Amino acid sequence: MYEGPVQDLIDELGRLPGIGPKSAQRIAFHLLAAEPADVTRLQEVLQQVKEGVVFCGVCGNVSEQETCRICADERRDKTLVCVVEEPKDVLAVERTREFKGRYHVLGGALDPLSGVGPDQLRVRELLARIGADDITEVIIATDPNTEGEATATYLVRILRDFPGLNVTRLASGLPMGGDLEFADELTLGRALSGRRAL
Amino acid sequence: MYEGPVQDLIDELGRLPGIGPKSAQRIAFHLLAAEPADVTRLQEVLQQVKEGVVFCGVCGNVSEQETCRICADERRDKTLVCVVEEPKDVLAVERTREFKGRYHVLGGALDPLSGVGPDQLRVRELLARIGADDITEVIIATDPNTEGEATATYLVRILRDFPGLNVTRLASGLPMGGDLEFADELTLGRALSGRRAL
Repeated sequence: MYEGPVQDLIDELGRLPGIGPKSAQRIAFHLLAAEPADVTRLQEVLQQVKEGVVFCGVCGNVSEQETCRICADERRDKTLVCVVEEPKDVLAVERTREFKGRYHVLGGALDPLSGVGPDQLRVRELLARIGADDITEVIIATDPNTEGEATATYLVRILRDFPGLNVTRLASGLPMGGDLEFADELTLGRALSGRRAL
Repeated sequence: MYEGPVQDLIDELGRLPGIGPKSAQRIAFHLLAAEPADVTRLQEVLQQVKEGVVFCGVCGNVSEQETCRICADERRDKTLVCVVEEPKDVLAVERTREFKGRYHVLGGALDPLSGVGPDQLRVRELLARIGADDITEVIIATDPNTEGEATATYLVRILRDFPGLNVTRLASGLPMGGDLEFADELTLGRALSGRRAL
């Protein structure tokens, strides 16, 4: 469509998730008109990420050091581990400011159709942590969708053999600020079955 | 939020047009998990665009050569010039397969509030082309919005002094495949005032 490098850039941008042909074109022309220093900065952060990002040896979160800030923080409760799918889920839980324990990032959820089984996730590392540390509770905070629920079920099955370990799951129910009328039936069903005594 | 290079990448991606914090995060984690070769390819096309994109000396479109493919094509009608704001507008007109003339890319539209006056656009180059070549018609195909209309009005005013030059504007009216009921009043008004005899 366009000539040479412009089309190459549009093609490459179009391969990124959530960027369609129109957005790719718009970004490409933005970069074309941008200061060379801005493009250089983008190239540099790509280089840094390619070279520099390490994953925390303990929890599997993205990290600058061998051990991430959370795992290195002695004030965080070592006995409590929250199991999430992705690094961005760590951020979501951190934003609540409610959780004082540590994390374990699985690196995805069970999805046999896409070839993701327990061996593709950091399940073995989780079992090793539970065996080695004084972990008393594992909170399973995988996504409330098919893959996340399957992963939670799988983890509950293998974790219940550890003596003295509590395995819990995030509550499902109505989102705060929502409207009962607009809740889907699955969410409303979960909210009903998970009702609490007042 | 995240540590080091990951957050830098999210910040840089978030500066691109149409990419919010959530998309930036999603793309960053995609790149983190991508093959290094894919990231390298993205870096390379950025480099190429920074170094290699030239603008056609005749029409101002993006080009690989000093003269773009369209201006270099002897089969295209030299007497007919379609004036557009941006290179992507050239592509839009080309897709119609209706236009056999050449283009002139202004590089934007008049927008005094953003400091874009006639000197920031390729207006002088347009006047030079009209003076030098045997151009008999200029089709003004700027966007049908405030800036585009102002640019069209300005161009009409300075082009009507050229003897024997026809200046035309793309028709405004109802989009094909649309629904009269859902047309906004401005578009419907334009369609009425521009009605044609059958």
